Amino acid sequence: MAGLQDAFGDARCAAALSDAALIDAMLRFEGALARACARAGIAPRDEAEVVARICAGARFEPDALAQDARRAGTLAIPIVRELSARVAAQSPAASRWVHYGATSQDLLDSATVLCVQTAGARVLELLARLGDAAAALAERHARTPMLGRTLLQPAAPIPFGWKAAVWLSLLTRSRRSFAAALEAARQLQYGGASGTLSSLGEKASAVAAALAEELGLPAAPITWHSARDAYARLGAESAILSGNAGKIARDIALLMQPEVGELAEPEEAGRGGSSAMPHKRNPVGCTAALETAQRAPALAATLLAQLTPEHERGLGQWQSQWLTLRDLLTGCAGALEAMGGVLEGLAVDAAAMRANLERMRGLVYSEPLSLRLAESLGRERALSLVDRLVAEVSEGRETLAERLQKDSEAAALVDASAIAALFDPQSGFAAAQQMIARALADWRAGR
Amino acid sequence: MAGLQDAFGDARCAAALSDAALIDAMLRFEGALARACARAGIAPRDEAEVVARICAGARFEPDALAQDARRAGTLAIPIVRELSARVAAQSPAASRWVHYGATSQDLLDSATVLCVQTAGARVLELLARLGDAAAALAERHARTPMLGRTLLQPAAPIPFGWKAAVWLSLLTRSRRSFAAALEAARQLQYGGASGTLSSLGEKASAVAAALAEELGLPAAPITWHSARDAYARLGAESAILSGNAGKIARDIALLMQPEVGELAEPEEAGRGGSSAMPHKRNPVGCTAALETAQRAPALAATLLAQLTPEHERGLGQWQSQWLTLRDLLTGCAGALEAMGGVLEGLAVDAAAMRANLERMRGLVYSEPLSLRLAESLGRERALSLVDRLVAEVSEGRETLAERLQKDSEAAALVDASAIAALFDPQSGFAAAQQMIARALADWRAGR
Amino acid sequence: MAGLQDAFGDARCAAALSDAALIDAMLRFEGALARACARAGIAPRDEAEVVARICAGARFEPDALAQDARRAGTLAIPIVRELSARVAAQSPAASRWVHYGATSQDLLDSATVLCVQTAGARVLELLARLGDAAAALAERHARTPMLGRTLLQPAAPIPFGWKAAVWLSLLTRSRRSFAAALEAARQLQYGGASGTLSSLGEKASAVAAALAEELGLPAAPITWHSARDAYARLGAESAILSGNAGKIARDIALLMQPEVGELAEPEEAGRGGSSAMPHKRNPVGCTAALETAQRAPALAATLLAQLTPEHERGLGQWQSQWLTLRDLLTGCAGALEAMGGVLEGLAVDAAAMRANLERMRGLVYSEPLSLRLAESLGRERALSLVDRLVAEVSEGRETLAERLQKDSEAAALVDASAIAALFDPQSGFAAAQQMIARALADWRAGR
Amino acid sequence: MAGLQDAFGDARCAAALSDAALIDAMLRFEGALARACARAGIAPRDEAEVVARICAGARFEPDALAQDARRAGTLAIPIVRELSARVAAQSPAASRWVHYGATSQDLLDSATVLCVQTAGARVLELLARLGDAAAALAERHARTPMLGRTLLQPAAPIPFGWKAAVWLSLLTRSRRSFAAALEAARQLQYGGASGTLSSLGEKASAVAAALAEELGLPAAPITWHSARDAYARLGAESAILSGNAGKIARDIALLMQPEVGELAEPEEAGRGGSSAMPHKRNPVGCTAALETAQRAPALAATLLAQLTPEHERGLGQWQSQWLTLRDLLTGCAGALEAMGGVLEGLAVDAAAMRANLERMRGLVYSEPLSLRLAESLGRERALSLVDRLVAEVSEGRETLAERLQKDSEAAALVDASAIAALFDPQSGFAAAQQMIARALADWRAGR
Repeated sequence: MAGLQDAFGDARCAAALSDAALIDAMLRFEGALARACARAGIAPRDEAEVVARICAGARFEPDALAQDARRAGTLAIPIVRELSARVAAQSPAASRWVHYGATSQDLLDSATVLCVQTAGARVLELLARLGDAAAALAERHARTPMLGRTLLQPAAPIPFGWKAAVWLSLLTRSRRSFAAALEAARQLQYGGASGTLSSLGEKASAVAAALAEELGLPAAPITWHSARDAYARLGAESAILSGNAGKIARDIALLMQPEVGELAEPEEAGRGGSSAMPHKRNPVGCTAALETAQRAPALAATLLAQLTPEHERGLGQWQSQWLTLRDLLTGCAGALEAMGGVLEGLAVDAAAMRANLERMRGLVYSEPLSLRLAESLGRERALSLVDRLVAEVSEGRETLAERLQKDSEAAALVDASAIAALFDPQSGFAAAQQMIARALADWRAGR
Repeated sequence: MAGLQDAFGDARCAAALSDAALIDAMLRFEGALARACARAGIAPRDEAEVVARICAGARFEPDALAQDARRAGTLAIPIVRELSARVAAQSPAASRWVHYGATSQDLLDSATVLCVQTAGARVLELLARLGDAAAALAERHARTPMLGRTLLQPAAPIPFGWKAAVWLSLLTRSRRSFAAALEAARQLQYGGASGTLSSLGEKASAVAAALAEELGLPAAPITWHSARDAYARLGAESAILSGNAGKIARDIALLMQPEVGELAEPEEAGRGGSSAMPHKRNPVGCTAALETAQRAPALAATLLAQLTPEHERGLGQWQSQWLTLRDLLTGCAGALEAMGGVLEGLAVDAAAMRANLERMRGLVYSEPLSLRLAESLGRERALSLVDRLVAEVSEGRETLAERLQKDSEAAALVDASAIAALFDPQSGFAAAQQMIARALADWRAGR
Repeated sequence: MAGLQDAFGDARCAAALSDAALIDAMLRFEGALARACARAGIAPRDEAEVVARICAGARFEPDALAQDARRAGTLAIPIVRELSARVAAQSPAASRWVHYGATSQDLLDSATVLCVQTAGARVLELLARLGDAAAALAERHARTPMLGRTLLQPAAPIPFGWKAAVWLSLLTRSRRSFAAALEAARQLQYGGASGTLSSLGEKASAVAAALAEELGLPAAPITWHSARDAYARLGAESAILSGNAGKIARDIALLMQPEVGELAEPEEAGRGGSSAMPHKRNPVGCTAALETAQRAPALAATLLAQLTPEHERGLGQWQSQWLTLRDLLTGCAGALEAMGGVLEGLAVDAAAMRANLERMRGLVYSEPLSLRLAESLGRERALSLVDRLVAEVSEGRETLAERLQKDSEAAALVDASAIAALFDPQSGFAAAQQMIARALADWRAGR
Repeated sequence: MAGLQDAFGDARCAAALSDAALIDAMLRFEGALARACARAGIAPRDEAEVVARICAGARFEPDALAQDARRAGTLAIPIVRELSARVAAQSPAASRWVHYGATSQDLLDSATVLCVQTAGARVLELLARLGDAAAALAERHARTPMLGRTLLQPAAPIPFGWKAAVWLSLLTRSRRSFAAALEAARQLQYGGASGTLSSLGEKASAVAAALAEELGLPAAPITWHSARDAYARLGAESAILSGNAGKIARDIALLMQPEVGELAEPEEAGRGGSSAMPHKRNPVGCTAALETAQRAPALAATLLAQLTPEHERGLGQWQSQWLTLRDLLTGCAGALEAMGGVLEGLAVDAAAMRANLERMRGLVYSEPLSLRLAESLGRERALSLVDRLVAEVSEGRETLAERLQKDSEAAALVDASAIAALFDPQSGFAAAQQMIARALADWRAGR
């Protein structure tokens, strides 16, 4: 945990990207590099093991490190300096293999990759849980009618399960794209001073390959010190996934308005209260997700704006990217975790949905009615007739179906059974059922 | 062309996304929809053809449309209203098939998709050209030594071809990812009022399938009125690609500084002059690319921030997204076009590269020298010795190799042939050659 | 007008920032510069007048200019070249005074300043109108009770006029800050090649002063070719003002939900309809404002990211800033114009406000009740008691006041008249009245 | 200190915005509120003192708090709950005055304001130091000639002091604007449940006024729970100031390139080394500033995008704004601190400046030469002649002055003394001197 900021993120993801985890990953890199030198036949095995052992046991204090890093201009330098001193104290010869052929950015980038992979796996796990919950809702409520709402105004009815299936479709695509971006970002950084591993001569490939194996990371086809696109893509996918969680959150928070009252976050002691008002039940899961969704686009934009480093290593772009990724991934996981809990325990009030629908007195069927009347009247005259009926309904207390049946001009054109069908929400759900089925199949195919 | 703003974009891409092209695509949608109704057996074929014929011949004035759209709240409404009137004037019955079962967003989204596909294809074409030019440089200069530069300071030498190969690796990944994002955004939007095609009943799927076929677009598995992730991904990939062009541009602009003088944009009459200074040759292609690279991240962030529309259609997110995509894609194509021209005609001054390298008097080989000395002295003592030699070289006029040979402590540890190898740039290029080969193979594999 | 994109902006503001207006301002600059040379005693008066006369009458075609500009790397070069040729055709001697001592950026920056001042004045005019409408609502509804809503859940009642006063407070601050940023951006740019007016020697100040006077712009204390902070501030203020309009829009759109039904945008023929659903009345003014509010932050960020140009003129930052400002200001004016219309004609349903409030059955008074009970019971016991009462009310059909009077524990602690006061919204409005009065006074003070 | 992220910020500013400082400020708020209740005659003085005393001595663990906050949906709730319990343990009656009439957002906003004021004062202190250093350079080098550079190409010479004066002008404006934004953000937040202090009735103003006085903050004229413009402005000014530091950093880093070699960051042990290359001296101060300048625009955009909270308290906008401000201010202070050190110890190599200028062989005087020749030849013919001379110089080894004197056409038009003046950098510095003087006066006026 790194303090109050973790109120906005998932705890396990925050741990994977904590200062301690980053320092630990840097030490893993140095230990693995020494071993790789031994495997490539450059370093004596026993000297390499001295380095590896010291790396395995070393501890560094983040605050002190931050101060030194500020002076040195990078986090890597104080770690390498101190580590080197500790190794030399045991074996001056072994100290040669500390940071061998490497540069600061190799260390920071590779360590970030290791942390990001753990964090990304956590994101995918939480995404799976959220998607499963959305899939369950899509299936269970495939025929539960509610108002569609566009521009916050009532529109033709939809099944609630279809709304959940739209959410699910977002998650299905994010699962594929986020996983791909995470995999593309899974690559060793080891390029040395200018990125060409020039001081390793003919041994360069062997060391790089052994190091990659030690760390369980693919070797990159070419150094990416100045090619930051993988982080930019992962940042964008994190923002998209946060936005997707935010989309679900926004819909639910709106449907939790007591005037609407169709959904509610699960109740739980100590959750969603107000520090001022005892009666309140706040959409705290939704709020957490929306908080993240608001912060993510700009964080992703920072990575998108850091694609033009100068030459072989830029003036600053790479040094803080782990921080930006930390904020993005921790927030994203937090949003998924929050919405997973919300969807799993979501209270769905189908009666309220129906009541809100009926309160519209059939006005939301004005479109199919227009199309039906247009069969006899053409588009323009049909729209005029419906406009008149709608106005009459709006001013009175009848439903549109009632008004229609009483209207001399209109009643002649639509018989009673047609009216019953036109004003039955289920009769418009055929396409929605197919869409739900496809969304469920797509989600399940990727499991 | 849409005016002065096109100074910042590729002309053909701008044309694909112009007002006229968008209006034309909207009319294509309406014509195709009428035909789809006929194919699905809803509309009489001759009535559908009336609509299709009028759509094919209709012209609308963007400025007038903008004014009506502002009042109506969307671009779609005035087009549908006017089109419907024109059709009704010829055949009131036929007018039923205008916008049949559709909503404003269906029209705007599908039209945008059609325009974006044309624009995206142009982007890929320009990307291919730029990549080929980078590949040619990577190959031709695989052994041309130049200074590596990190934090704008000289570092170990690199082959210029390796630098070009890093550029190429960015383009290879963007080609794959941009194409994937473009393909994922190639989808029909046709959902009707609430997105469920509810007023079409059992005929919904047939009409949607026929419409998709008419327009040459895949039908979407589920309506994406409120699921804007495909645009967000395409926006992010456009920004990444713009950033990649910007990376190449930044490197070249820096190497065109006359104090460095290693590269130059191609000369061409009327290009790169100054309105004040007759002697100047400005990096105009690079500037155009950097201009775009600076604007793209925020435009992409706008799309990333529009992922949380309210319910089935949001308060505004979708209405201006074609504008944001227009700016992103036109700018991106412009950047690629500019840099394609720059790389194809790039003047490479290998002699200047070598001279700048030699002016460093061997100091940039301090790292391999340290590693070599550490074999005898351990890391700390080796670094101290090299620090001393470097300081002596910096104050005098000798090269590091000369100083080394004269230094009693150091000379004993490295013999003359080792020195020759240490201070030969080519001896550190082994890994770089392999990286270049891999980058070329990756680029060519995707052709 | 510049086409479809103007659907998202105010027409008069768009005209002030149109291509034609920018070109016109560039010609004004060149004409004024020639006259300034005459006033400073460098140019013969009759030669200067030739230039001024040709500038006054010249017309350029934006599309052609964009194409030339792309090749030249800046909009200024083709204009200067063509203008110079036209002058030389009449008087070769006079052509010396075209662009005298100036550089491309002088021309583009100063012309942008001229256009931006006109556009900014329009923004301030629309802001005044919107503020007056908000002030009228604040005053008229200073005692109209409605539910407060936090996290979209009901909270203690507020006067609707107080909500309007919060809107007004945003506009009051924006009026001051936007006007200050606009004034700070009102400055001549005239620095010549490197910004030091070096080729004008001792005459530099005289020409600059005369040019400033001709254009009605203050001379800048020092060239701002590479100091872009004034645009960054104006961009940020535009985004803030757009956000403020968006805040009003969001509240109104939420209160227009038919389930809430407390406010409605004014009705007007052809406004807010749906292309699919005849019954709909969409919040189109609010949507337009929210559209702008969503796009503005990233556009402002672009200007914030362009503060670090290289040396005396950067690689691209300055060339497209007029475009970014155009989008920001036109959108901002459009949002203000839309919301001005909405607020002036806003339908306020005080009865619906009261009904929604009463539907809460007094639960929103739980806080003052807790505070009152805490006088006898201490904070913890009071909160427990209120929690119990609230739970009982939530499950039944009584109001909290009724429950309270029947509860043996609670009733003993609060007498009937205290209950009446506690559950009267007006009794909590004292501070709100003062806040409204202050907000009105602040707004009116700045008129 | 909050860990590794502080490598990117000023330590004192980070401390002012640390978790501990925020929690401490929340406790100050609660203590002051209890006292304010006593001063307003609501609370017995001794009970208020119990609260104040416990607040003064309380300690909370950030990590535990973050976890509770996550569940509760806000940082405020666990603090209030725990504090209330601690007070009640000593005096149940006194516990009434904990959080009296307040809401979570009052606590978080006011605490943030307190921390931000301390941090902002530190920013202004560092800004003063940086400005003084820039002013000293502007004065000392008011006549030191160097190349102007536009689009990274050589342009007319400038005094180095003029370049420093442009930097200074940025800082002068930022000082005024940042201070104004900081002052505008210095306001108490105390609105209670819905922002109207409704549960305090007639006592509301008295409590608010006393609380403001206790905390040394002005009372806000109206609650700003949902009016977040002050933070947006402060964020924008922080980003502008970071950008200004970045502008100075970019120029210096470019001039530190060894091929240019005109400036150098101060040398200091342990500063600017490389983990790989012993010879390197990196521009670490400039890099730190540019790092911040790259991250700031997006962080500012986050605040610009959070201006539209729903109703009286939004779904999440306000909860993380202290985090965003923390990152912005800490980074900004770090950038100023870094550049203050750089400018105070900046190594200026006037000889290198002159050598780079002379290496241009007079080509950078082509503009004044054109203007001079245009007096005889008109603009077009003069430009042609200069183009020819420039081309001849570029191909040979002469200077432009030498070429000019040998050219039969040109030599007749300019005599030797005119040539000497034209090619003397000082002869073009008149306007620059005046600009420097104005920039210095402006800076000093604001001290």
